[in-house]
Amino acid sequence: MAKDNFVEQIADIDTDFPQWYTDVVVKTKLVDYGPVKGTMVIRPYGYAIWENIQREMDARFKAAGIENAYFPLLIPMSFMTREAEHVEGFAPEVAVVTHAGGEKLAEPLCIRPTSETIIGSMYSKWIQSYRDLPVLMNQWANVMRWEKTTRPFLRTSEFLWQEGHTVHASGEEAMEMTLKMLAVYEEFACTCLAMPVLTGRKTEKEKFAGAVATFGMEAMMHDGKSLQAGTTHYLGQNFAKAFDIKFLDKDGALKYGYTTSFGVSTRLIGAIIMTHGDKRGLVMPPVVAPVQAVIVPIAAKKEGVLQACRALKEKLSAAGVRVALDDSENSPGWKFNEWEMKGVPVRIELGPRDLEAGKCLLFRRDTLEKTECALDGAEGAVRALLGDISETMYERAKARMDARIVRAETLEELLAGVEGGNFVRAGWCGCRECEDKVKEFAQATARVLDGENTSDKCIVCGKKAESTVVFARAY
Amino acid sequence: MAKDNFVEQIADIDTDFPQWYTDVVVKTKLVDYGPVKGTMVIRPYGYAIWENIQREMDARFKAAGIENAYFPLLIPMSFMTREAEHVEGFAPEVAVVTHAGGEKLAEPLCIRPTSETIIGSMYSKWIQSYRDLPVLMNQWANVMRWEKTTRPFLRTSEFLWQEGHTVHASGEEAMEMTLKMLAVYEEFACTCLAMPVLTGRKTEKEKFAGAVATFGMEAMMHDGKSLQAGTTHYLGQNFAKAFDIKFLDKDGALKYGYTTSFGVSTRLIGAIIMTHGDKRGLVMPPVVAPVQAVIVPIAAKKEGVLQACRALKEKLSAAGVRVALDDSENSPGWKFNEWEMKGVPVRIELGPRDLEAGKCLLFRRDTLEKTECALDGAEGAVRALLGDISETMYERAKARMDARIVRAETLEELLAGVEGGNFVRAGWCGCRECEDKVKEFAQATARVLDGENTSDKCIVCGKKAESTVVFARAY
Repeated sequence: MAKDNFVEQIADIDTDFPQWYTDVVVKTKLVDYGPVKGTMVIRPYGYAIWENIQREMDARFKAAGIENAYFPLLIPMSFMTREAEHVEGFAPEVAVVTHAGGEKLAEPLCIRPTSETIIGSMYSKWIQSYRDLPVLMNQWANVMRWEKTTRPFLRTSEFLWQEGHTVHASGEEAMEMTLKMLAVYEEFACTCLAMPVLTGRKTEKEKFAGAVATFGMEAMMHDGKSLQAGTTHYLGQNFAKAFDIKFLDKDGALKYGYTTSFGVSTRLIGAIIMTHGDKRGLVMPPVVAPVQAVIVPIAAKKEGVLQACRALKEKLSAAGVRVALDDSENSPGWKFNEWEMKGVPVRIELGPRDLEAGKCLLFRRDTLEKTECALDGAEGAVRALLGDISETMYERAKARMDARIVRAETLEELLAGVEGGNFVRAGWCGCRECEDKVKEFAQATARVLDGENTSDKCIVCGKKAESTVVFARAY
Repeated sequence: MAKDNFVEQIADIDTDFPQWYTDVVVKTKLVDYGPVKGTMVIRPYGYAIWENIQREMDARFKAAGIENAYFPLLIPMSFMTREAEHVEGFAPEVAVVTHAGGEKLAEPLCIRPTSETIIGSMYSKWIQSYRDLPVLMNQWANVMRWEKTTRPFLRTSEFLWQEGHTVHASGEEAMEMTLKMLAVYEEFACTCLAMPVLTGRKTEKEKFAGAVATFGMEAMMHDGKSLQAGTTHYLGQNFAKAFDIKFLDKDGALKYGYTTSFGVSTRLIGAIIMTHGDKRGLVMPPVVAPVQAVIVPIAAKKEGVLQACRALKEKLSAAGVRVALDDSENSPGWKFNEWEMKGVPVRIELGPRDLEAGKCLLFRRDTLEKTECALDGAEGAVRALLGDISETMYERAKARMDARIVRAETLEELLAGVEGGNFVRAGWCGCRECEDKVKEFAQATARVLDGENTSDKCIVCGKKAESTVVFARAY
């Protein structure tokens, strides 16, 4: 469905990263703007990434014993107010249904911004005994948070996500689950998105509304800013008390359960784009790439070329490679640009001379290197190359992130650090005032707590530091 | 997570089918009622069926060249009014968002009851030339239709579905697509749900609001009522004109495209339940059954029994069978009842004597027959049995439906027919008044047109019949 027979230009990644992002997401047809402000349409090339993310993540959930379910979109407004911090955090962002079926509703309903409340109300009905625990569920769903400033994938009024919700008999077990899912997310980011992350606990200011503790994974984008790519929440008994989730324990006593929740969203697609993209456009990690290899025939009209390309396509497809054959009438040069912009990990060129020599040419998008490969057994070579691309992309992103985590002893150093596109490690006393001061002075926020560090001073007040914080500007 | 250590009773299927349905869906934990009237929670055992439906259907869409995408949940109210019949049909059922982000919205937004309008608005932006056609997209999404009377899976204010939306350069091609998708649905129903269907065109009265022609597949439920299990719509240029979907044709002229849409929903789960269920509860078709085989150890504490059960489970799982091992402390009798109610196609019993003889016992849920099977190669036997169960279930449902399609020459015969739990074939002149008369007299509606039949008389007015109609009472 390509409309124009030329490769459209994208802004320069280093001088105008925001425009580069907008150009890339629209021109590679990942996404388009919906008619209602702040909404996005996820086009087939973008949605295919999400399908791959879902498949990989869902397999990990099922391996962890988590079952999928589906809970209603609309939540009675009264549910939101039962947990005090929760309503404070989410009420300003909800979209409200006031009329339905031609009538005004007795109680306004809000479109779920997240589902702790409605799921909590069902859990309270389903759980009675310790034998019913743990409950481990997940749902793949759309949620809505009315945002003032929006950008495709990164922040839109509606987005797609998964939200896991579990109930446990003890706080220890719930905390263990919270950390286990954080580890699942981290492993997923590394393995499937070739994306290194920093993980850790969030500060009180940055935690989920209603949680006892939130843990996050943060990824470094091309411009050195941080993107929160997934969070897991230890909710303690907050929601159990608000929704009366009680169980009869082995000792005969009626006790409140301990709950957790955790989620990743279509934001991950934005993270992929901004972690790996380069001046030519997207660079897709092989595991979630909609197309892993594209075959471009050279001198396609010469005898046997197209036939050989089709045979190669069949062979790759049978070997489990997601492969496309571009047999359109565009020139090879045009096709090279187009598929490079779309970030397809491997391009396979095959022309009459290659055919005669029984080989083809492999171009890898990550390093822009070309190698020759025998047609016989090409499927093995392509699979191996895809594995190598995954590793190389991860190592490169990891090296960049590691090189751009700096240490600061003063607010001025911290400011210089984030302005230079770095994550900045600094001591923090633990008080909200000092955290706010950093935000005001350097437009940077605490991304994760980096473990206890009592030998340090707070970068703001100079008092003894309670922990080391990674500060950064963030999406 | 079983709460009670006994099998709960369900109403008698033949004397109180509605109560049987409610009992079965709730007690097998397929579904529960949500806090907002008319909403449902799809529990893991129900959602697993939907996941299996999705996987099978999605593979068929992809094979037909259809790509998945995702369009926004909220549609500007003004979009709905652009197609006159469409707004008339859907406006009374929409849920309306009037406030969001703490403010009153300038224009009310409706939660999609279906997405022809918003997708049409995007297609008009994306399509310019005949080279962009056909456009073949689908989305898996939640939709909302505010209904007065609701029942889990059959009619709920929110439900999950897929909606396909295509654009073509000619009316012929669009009609071909409409009929092709009807055939895909029919093949899916037979193969995956073991459910025979009648397919055909709908009357003007029963067609989709905004369509030129609607085609449906109807399935016969246990009580002889009909359930519309899927529809495909030829929309002509109605939505193309309303949303300005135009393309520059090969001849240089600017033309409106021709569109189609088609959908199946979580209603299919209700159809499965009411087609195959019996007095013991659910009978799940093997292709979409969440659990295809359950292993029940007999005298589980005897040496080697549990070990052998676990080994068998591994073997079946490796052979691609979705298998569960019930090693709970309930008695075998309790387990038999429980898994029969849940409709698991095959139960495998394995005790010390079986083990000694190197065999196990297979119980098939559809015919309630037991056979012996050697442990060595049991995976092959179970797979073959699952295939046989699929076929037997289909044949049985087909024979029942065929036996219960009767012919009527008078309204009294038609009434007697539907009251007896039959589909009734009758001649129809084609006018709305006569169709309304049948509804009034027999509480039956025209399910599908059965092809032209000019030799017949209209069952109401006695004029020459334009076609034969299958009338039935319907869900």
